[in-house]
Amino acid sequence: MKLGRLNHVGIATPSIADSVRFYREVMGAEVIREPFDLPAQGVKVCFVDTPIGRAGGTGGPQIELIEPLGEGSPIHGFLAKNPAGGQHHLCYEVPDIHAAKAWFEAKGARVLGEPRIGAHGTPIFFVHPRDMGGVLTEIMETPKMAAGHGS
Amino acid sequence: MKLGRLNHVGIATPSIADSVRFYREVMGAEVIREPFDLPAQGVKVCFVDTPIGRAGGTGGPQIELIEPLGEGSPIHGFLAKNPAGGQHHLCYEVPDIHAAKAWFEAKGARVLGEPRIGAHGTPIFFVHPRDMGGVLTEIMETPKMAAGHGS
Repeated sequence: MKLGRLNHVGIATPSIADSVRFYREVMGAEVIREPFDLPAQGVKVCFVDTPIGRAGGTGGPQIELIEPLGEGSPIHGFLAKNPAGGQHHLCYEVPDIHAAKAWFEAKGARVLGEPRIGAHGTPIFFVHPRDMGGVLTEIMETPKMAAGHGS
Repeated sequence: MKLGRLNHVGIATPSIADSVRFYREVMGAEVIREPFDLPAQGVKVCFVDTPIGRAGGTGGPQIELIEPLGEGSPIHGFLAKNPAGGQHHLCYEVPDIHAAKAWFEAKGARVLGEPRIGAHGTPIFFVHPRDMGGVLTEIMETPKMAAGHGS
């Protein structure tokens, strides 16, 4: 397997509304997407675009703001330890989610559950941070329509 | 100020040698730079390239592996809490480090010290995570020779 594109950096927050204000007013983000609920993952999600180059705009990895949704949200534990929020996971793209799952399992890394549909509408899974240098890692199948994007 | 390019994701590790092996063998990284010491910051550093697009290669944000260098290294505290390592900071580029410092200070964000030369040879500063949604944030002046890169 080859290292794929860094699709996004997941950042947990107690309030997407407050974080959106922060990214717009302090960080100067120009493109902030509409927040939406992802009940299957127990999170509310909002993507902030970063520029791919030095001219501003979009096309770089996104910041994925994640806020707990529901009492069983997996983000509650993280926010209990980090009440202001913080870096939660990194997400890399792969061309084939099932091939990637087999790859990580063959390397002895603990894949957390079966592939399921993620925030971009393509299958994803997470790999246990203990097997990933302490980094909770999301693996995401590249959206088909965007397969040539940025390459 | 406009949000700049995500230059790198800083990941603390107890062993750059082990992390390099992990990024090569498990993550499939194709371009891993030579590690070097950055005594002024109390860290040993190694950059792992990520692809900018879906065809593999380089040009995306780098992973900056950081290992403690010396007893006074600021990474010791992080590794005491996270023995396996983990996500340490995010670094964004700006065109002018002094303008950026004035911007963040005007927003009430605590800039940690004066600009100093960072791992890419250009001036950098860090901003306190408590003022940045829990994310330790490095601000880095874009290398002049790379000003057009990727844009």
